[in-house]
Amino acid sequence: MHHSAGEGEAGSRPARGSGAGVSIDAERLWTTLVDSARFGGTERGGLHRLALDEADAEVRAWLESAAAVAGWPVQRDRIGNQFVVKPGRRADAEAVLIGSHLDSQPLGGRYDGVYGVLAGLEVLRALAEREIEHERPIILANWTNEEGARFSPSMMGSAVFSGSLALDEALARADAGGATVAEALAGVGGVAAPTAERPSVAGIHAAVELHIEQGPELEATGTDIGFVSGVQAIRWIDARVSGESGHAGTTPLGARRDALVAASRIVAEVAGLGETVDPDIRPTVGELVVTPNSRNVIPAHARLGLDLRHPSAGILDRAERTIRQAAARIAADSGTSVEIEVILDQPAVVFDSGVLEAVRSATRSLGLSGADLISRAGHDAMQLAARVPTAMIFIPCAGGISHSEAERITPEWAANGARVLFETVAELSGARR
Amino acid sequence: MHHSAGEGEAGSRPARGSGAGVSIDAERLWTTLVDSARFGGTERGGLHRLALDEADAEVRAWLESAAAVAGWPVQRDRIGNQFVVKPGRRADAEAVLIGSHLDSQPLGGRYDGVYGVLAGLEVLRALAEREIEHERPIILANWTNEEGARFSPSMMGSAVFSGSLALDEALARADAGGATVAEALAGVGGVAAPTAERPSVAGIHAAVELHIEQGPELEATGTDIGFVSGVQAIRWIDARVSGESGHAGTTPLGARRDALVAASRIVAEVAGLGETVDPDIRPTVGELVVTPNSRNVIPAHARLGLDLRHPSAGILDRAERTIRQAAARIAADSGTSVEIEVILDQPAVVFDSGVLEAVRSATRSLGLSGADLISRAGHDAMQLAARVPTAMIFIPCAGGISHSEAERITPEWAANGARVLFETVAELSGARR
Repeated sequence: MHHSAGEGEAGSRPARGSGAGVSIDAERLWTTLVDSARFGGTERGGLHRLALDEADAEVRAWLESAAAVAGWPVQRDRIGNQFVVKPGRRADAEAVLIGSHLDSQPLGGRYDGVYGVLAGLEVLRALAEREIEHERPIILANWTNEEGARFSPSMMGSAVFSGSLALDEALARADAGGATVAEALAGVGGVAAPTAERPSVAGIHAAVELHIEQGPELEATGTDIGFVSGVQAIRWIDARVSGESGHAGTTPLGARRDALVAASRIVAEVAGLGETVDPDIRPTVGELVVTPNSRNVIPAHARLGLDLRHPSAGILDRAERTIRQAAARIAADSGTSVEIEVILDQPAVVFDSGVLEAVRSATRSLGLSGADLISRAGHDAMQLAARVPTAMIFIPCAGGISHSEAERITPEWAANGARVLFETVAELSGARR
Repeated sequence: MHHSAGEGEAGSRPARGSGAGVSIDAERLWTTLVDSARFGGTERGGLHRLALDEADAEVRAWLESAAAVAGWPVQRDRIGNQFVVKPGRRADAEAVLIGSHLDSQPLGGRYDGVYGVLAGLEVLRALAEREIEHERPIILANWTNEEGARFSPSMMGSAVFSGSLALDEALARADAGGATVAEALAGVGGVAAPTAERPSVAGIHAAVELHIEQGPELEATGTDIGFVSGVQAIRWIDARVSGESGHAGTTPLGARRDALVAASRIVAEVAGLGETVDPDIRPTVGELVVTPNSRNVIPAHARLGLDLRHPSAGILDRAERTIRQAAARIAADSGTSVEIEVILDQPAVVFDSGVLEAVRSATRSLGLSGADLISRAGHDAMQLAARVPTAMIFIPCAGGISHSEAERITPEWAANGARVLFETVAELSGARR
């Protein structure tokens, strides 16, 4: 979809609907999205910007320049989270916290996380440009390592910020090459050097994260805005298959204990959970590593990384039982052994009804359509929700495709979400208009 | 099994059977096997010595020292093959070529290849010690990169020597880290520096490779020696599955194009070829690489490395057709595309009946038992067979286990094979006793 007429003039014309007459600059938002994608952008229109890699260092520096131009201080905590602070009229008031993350999946999309940070930047810019005063400080966060693709676990920065993950434990986590988070932070240089333990505000009044849906519902129903009432439960399971290596040309079929053949049956079992357990489950084997992985050697070991999600943890319990039973059966059939280990068990999250009401009200005031939904992906807001009143805003994304270079949104969707964020932040921060 | 009484005195007592009264030193052979396993030896009694890595460089230097002590020149060609030359009485006579390879699979066994080189060294030592003169030169070869685990293709050194692989093409092949064979050879230093295009002999009269069976037949039937009449056909196939990446938590089941789910079905299809095509086939998927291989991303790509073997190429044709049909069906079912490519198609090899008769005669003269069999593994002798009269000698290996740290032989099996090699080489080289 192309940039629709009038988007570029959103600052000089009334927004769609009856509400606010001043809002964000849709053209500047889109330009900023396109511009910042040069840091780690791929030829196929995606983004490859892993946490604390070179491209991430560049986009962090870029964000700090943008804040400096506007005169907003940037603060950083010890896990590398960046906080752009726009002061309010009352220095002692608790802040409104917005933002998301600038890191991506390997060969991921341009909008997952990035959109939430850049739309937040646009909200700050619009407030400043229009000289709109607000009571509370507004903090725009770029959370470190939301994706978890380079360093595990995901949502690392927001988990440390919220106290659910110890700083020292996070700093000690290593990537596949053996580099720790602490080393990677040091490698990024000045734009990851800590300035303070926490942002210099009295506390957090409310948090709002704007994000693409990463699912097909909003686009399919022609809805502008998603009111995200919570996040589905997530369970990560490792399955380790041990067989015996052997010569591919000589070992008779009956004497084989092939770890990959057994692992393949586990993959099929996981893929079938929609039929065997519940059609609404999201079951994925995203990782499979074979050892020794040499063509003419029967595989001795295989490690599978599973990701299971469902709004109900009870369904995930049933899925886990099904996998454990299947693994035992497959191990017995194939002469292998299979170990099953739950490495993450994240309960469902329910977001704050007060913050959600502010989002609904903003959407109504703009004349946009909205619908309640749950998030099927994990987000930094999940971590914040344990400590402060939190909610999320979703915009559509094309075909529900995400974590992919093919991830796409339209300028109109981007502008709608930023307008809703603008009105929500204005409301929560006590803006005077 | 323990070293049986008398093995250590093999040099001072008549060998079992009625034939030769002088032969190899079984104790020295075993000590040499144990001693040289320190180069790349693993804690679990295996060997991890990839072509031209540090351990391979060490064992090459060790072999050259052993030759130097005995006064035999070592020559090296441009692909790094090492040739220990024991001169014969007739400098113009074509040589007898023995040996095998000193590289191993990743976490492989101590005997595959290594045994053939070290038993050959023992034969040279025994001939020298007993001052047995022979008409023809005897060349002991250590062929570069037989395993193909670090650099593809396997049997690289012998293929270049035999002219079936161009030197420049071999030198340009790169490992997973991007290092080429040429660079790896340079990195090994002096013990891989070429001394000549070819060994300085008039030609090759005959070649014999002694090796462990890497299969269960000899041990199961209590047979001492295998007369290897040929090698089964080998076909290597790459299958590349392309789907679409996506977010593991959000993408609905019906919208997924998961490359790993499709790849797993191909693995099952390959594993079933014993039932669908022929029970004597050896079908293996030894390699599977998933991209992006991140737990919470639906796999976009999967590459499978297949190894299919059977004495009849016609059966491999049927197996390949079966895989192509299954791949098309799986692709259609799963919304993925699958490309199938044959990357190696090696016909069955028939060894030389004259050389085999020398092996049979040697076995008989020693009072050992022997049986005809075919090799199910590829060997350097396959390459040589295209150019010179060639055969192989097998000894048993425990449980048929190979390409594994669990690979084992007994000192008695090792001694028997070396004695047969000694008698065979004595016969072929015109020894005077």
